[in-house]
This record gives sequence, structure tokens and C-alpha cells, in this order.
Amino acid sequence: MTPATSLFTPVEADLRILADNLKQLVGNRHPILYAAAEHLFGAGGKRIRPAIVLLIARATMLEQDITSRHRRLAEITEMIHTASLVHDDVVDESQMRRGVSTVHSLFGNRIAVLAGDFLFAQSSWYLANLDNLEVVKLLSEVIMDLAAGEIQQGLNRFDTNISIETYLNKSYYKTASLIANSSKAAGILSDVSPETAEHLYNYGRHLGLAFQIVDDIFDFTSSVETLGKPVGSDLKSGNLTAPVLFALAEKPYLEVLIEREFAQEGDLEQALRLIQESQGIQQARELADHHAKLATEHIAVLPPSESRQALINMANYVLSRLY
Amino acid sequence: MTPATSLFTPVEADLRILADNLKQLVGNRHPILYAAAEHLFGAGGKRIRPAIVLLIARATMLEQDITSRHRRLAEITEMIHTASLVHDDVVDESQMRRGVSTVHSLFGNRIAVLAGDFLFAQSSWYLANLDNLEVVKLLSEVIMDLAAGEIQQGLNRFDTNISIETYLNKSYYKTASLIANSSKAAGILSDVSPETAEHLYNYGRHLGLAFQIVDDIFDFTSSVETLGKPVGSDLKSGNLTAPVLFALAEKPYLEVLIEREFAQEGDLEQALRLIQESQGIQQARELADHHAKLATEHIAVLPPSESRQALINMANYVLSRLY
Repeated sequence: MTPATSLFTPVEADLRILADNLKQLVGNRHPILYAAAEHLFGAGGKRIRPAIVLLIARATMLEQDITSRHRRLAEITEMIHTASLVHDDVVDESQMRRGVSTVHSLFGNRIAVLAGDFLFAQSSWYLANLDNLEVVKLLSEVIMDLAAGEIQQGLNRFDTNISIETYLNKSYYKTASLIANSSKAAGILSDVSPETAEHLYNYGRHLGLAFQIVDDIFDFTSSVETLGKPVGSDLKSGNLTAPVLFALAEKPYLEVLIEREFAQEGDLEQALRLIQESQGIQQARELADHHAKLATEHIAVLPPSESRQALINMANYVLSRLY
Repeated sequence: MTPATSLFTPVEADLRILADNLKQLVGNRHPILYAAAEHLFGAGGKRIRPAIVLLIARATMLEQDITSRHRRLAEITEMIHTASLVHDDVVDESQMRRGVSTVHSLFGNRIAVLAGDFLFAQSSWYLANLDNLEVVKLLSEVIMDLAAGEIQQGLNRFDTNISIETYLNKSYYKTASLIANSSKAAGILSDVSPETAEHLYNYGRHLGLAFQIVDDIFDFTSSVETLGKPVGSDLKSGNLTAPVLFALAEKPYLEVLIEREFAQEGDLEQALRLIQESQGIQQARELADHHAKLATEHIAVLPPSESRQALINMANYVLSRLY
């Protein structure tokens, strides 16, 4: 299995600059934000989102170097993502993320709400200062989608009637919108044609959906150590993902367990067993596969380059994690 | 005493349209947001901020009608203000605001954080769709200032060394920035000269500071019934405002009480008494007076009109509330 970071070779130096810049940008106004920024933009993150932006920038600026606006867009993408994680942790009262204490548990509710607000606000401000209205619109849409996705997920808790379409729609809001719109924005900053911009959007959309489906499968197939949270956490909290929705068609008793919100002892364990016995996880794998393949088709419109290859590898890598 | 709303006569019809639009705009995506929007944009609010935007729009578009972009700016202004109130209530764990239950106490922490995020996100999105980069930049700055102001207020709790300048700076971030930048933006949408735009900014800045100082005085002079919260609430939470900072110069023992965070019985009552006995409240009144007067000077550059008069009256009204 290829580690994610080795996929980023063409933009490794760019990502180092980005990490330093982010700590500077976020931390320079307040000591408490500096502490939060150190924590947030330190060693932990995988920086997949800015890496995609930078790879698209390089793959669309073949002859020339990428611009400072491409770099700023990559930073904004990571800021938006981080802001949404900080607020998600407040909302879900999470103590840990990726094995690291959350801002919410380290600094309290108060600072976590404010730090998230500040990161969102700062990303809007840097966005406006990119001086490109189209890009401002694309990324503002993302911030709205993130909030809408989180609200929708809350409303759909323990609802066994939601369709795979509703699930994909929510996954678009929560994960794919940011990758899709920032991929397109990176192309726009390179002055690609409107057709290419749409292909970049669709690359990001399908890649983001594949990411989310794979993450949701891990909730059932990974160990506590790799996940950094107990197996079946999503299911327990009523967040019904692809494996569950597929399994429901096969195992009617699953519906009973979910609708009583695992109230009786052994309910959650029994539900996890039913899902394992079903074709749900396999069908979810096929769905992830489908979206990853579509992603590679859309990115194929770019001229060949080391960066384009890295973007194709990214889609393959997502799937490789499943086997 | 003139009720605030009668100042709004020239834009009364505009404000009714605005109230309907806001409920529509915010509520149309999710039932829970619709409930929150009904609550937030219902009868309660004074709508001072959008009224100022609409009055400036009318005062700068004398011959023509105001545009849909002016109306949208007024709506955005109220959305940003409301979003910041929703998160302030989460951060401060407030149960009531203006005698009405907070979103946080009605719907829970979770929905309050998300509803605030959604309102901020939606305002950024509508902002981008005004198609005016200068306006986008001005209002993004506001969202950043609001977060920075709240953080600064948190950091300065019980710090008796802060100066009146620090206090005014924080008040600018928390209150005046929104009024100043949206006043300027309203002028920009009417194509005023850069000089006039600066005067509008300064009108809003001084008016906003006067507003905040008057509000801070009310924490000491009002009754529980008018305030909707106990007298001395700011002081108790360590938020040191103009009357306290002025009183500190006169009553050294106040410092002792504040620095031990009113730990001993009777400390808060004694501190309130010391402030009442000092010239602090009077000096704060003079400071509010000074800023309100500066506001009227800056707005005087506009040609005479019913709307300009309403903007002048607004500054006088702020002060009239004190006597």
C-alpha cells in the first residue's frame, strides 16, 4: 500500500511552505489562536485537500510556475476544512480526532467555537482578496454546503428510510463539495477553458465521494487503533452510511435495531454482525470504485504530466486502502 | 423619548420586505433552520443595522429608487449580526436575549453552532453574489473582526490594566465594524465618491462606538426588566467596559475586587457601589456623546433629505436613551 504522502511528491516542497504559512496566517493575531493553529496545522493533518489544489495548479500551469494565488487557494482550502473539523468536534463533543486531542477538549467549547468562526472568517477574507469573483462564489458555496451537510446529517439520524441518493447528497455537502469546488477554482486561476473547469469539478466531486464512502466503510472494517475511535461509531450515533443502507435491503431486522436506537443490550453488536454478514460492505466498495473510476476519467482531459499522474494515483490509492 | 422604530419612517416599507425575505432566505433549506429563522427574524429584533444600510441607500440614491443590491446588503448585514449573536449565546451560555429564549437554550448547543455557521456561510454566499469585490472585502473584514473581538474580550477578562483605547478597539471589532463597513458598502453600491464612502464609514464607526458605550452604561443604570439580564452582568463576567475603566482611576479598591474575580461575598455589590459613586458613568456618557457628535458631522456631507435626517436623529436618539 502506498502511503498517501508519497503521492504528493510533485508538490512536497509546496506543502512545506503551506504548513508554515498557515501557522503564520492564523496565529499572528492572537496567542490563543497561535496555540490552536500550532495544534491544528502541526504534524497531524494529511493535507490531502491542499495537495489536490497544488497538483491541479501544477498540472494546469505546465510551462510556468504556479502563482501565489494558487498557493493562497490551497491555504484557504485547508483553513475551511480545519474550521469545519473544529466545529464538528464541538457539535459531536468529540475528545479525539486522528489520535490527537480536539481543540474543543483542549481549550474548551468557548475557544473552539470562536477559533472555528475565526478560521471561517479568515478564509472568507483571504478568498475575497484573491480578487476573483468566480472563485469567491465557488468557495462560499462550499462553506454553505458544509453547514447544510452537517445539519442534514443531524436531521437524518436513525432514519432507515433515507436512500443512497440522500446519503450521496449529504456526502457531497460534507466532503466532496470542498474538493470539487477547490479543484475547479485551481483550474480557473490557471485560466483553463470552461469545459476543463467542469472536468476538474467532476474529478473533485467523484474523488470526494469515493473518499467519503471509503471512510464510511472503515467504520466497520478497521480496528480501534487505526480509526482512533471505536468501531461502529457512526452507526451508534445514528449516522447511516452506505454499508448500512445496502445491508438494510437484505436484513430487515436491522431496521428494528436502528429504529429503537440500539436501546437494548447487545443491539449495536447484533447490528454490526448483520452488516458484516450482508453484502453491504462489498456493495459500498463497488460504489466507491465506481466514483474513483469516474474521477480518473475526468482528470484524463489534462495533458500528461507528473502532477496529473499523481492525481490519477490518488483515486487508485483511495481504493487500495480497502483491500 | 422617541422609540427607535419611529426613526425608521423613511424605510419602514423596506424593513417589512426585509423581514419577510430573511425568513424565506434562511429558512428555505431546512425545517430546523426555518424554526430558528422564525425565532431569530421574528418580532424581537430592532433591525437597526439593516435600517442604517437602507437609510444610507435612500440618502445616496435621492433621484432614483434603491436597488435590489442595496436590499440584499441590508439583509446580509442582519444575517451577519444574527449569526454572531447566536454564537455569542453559545459561547456565553446565555439562556435569554432581549427577554426571548436563545437558539442555544431552545434547540441546544448543536443546532446553535450549526445555525450560526449556516448564517455566516449564507451571508458570505449572498455577499459574493452581489458581484462587487470591494463590498465582499469590506464585509469579510467584518466577519473576521467579530470573531477577533469576541476572542479579545475573552482574553481581557478581569484585566484591570486594559486602556480605554483597548476597550474602544474591542468595541470597534464587536459592534462598530459591521455598522461602519456596511454603511460604506451601501454608499459604494450607490457609486458615491471615495471621499463620501470614507465619511459613511466614519459615520458608522462613531455611531457603532456610541451604541456600544451606551449599552455598556446600561449594564449599570438599567433595571433587570429593561435589560433582560441582571444589572452588572458584564462586570460579573469580567468584561470591563468604559464606566469601570474610568472608575478604576478614582477608586483603587475596585482593582482588588476585580482582580480576585469577586470571589468573596459582597464583592460584586461593593464594586457596583464604587462605580456608582465615581464619575465613571458620567465620563462614559461624555465619551458616547463625543462619538455620536462625530457621527453626525460625518453624515452631514450628504445632501439634505428625509433619510439623512433620520441618520442624524439616530445618533441623537442613542444619547437620548441615557437621560
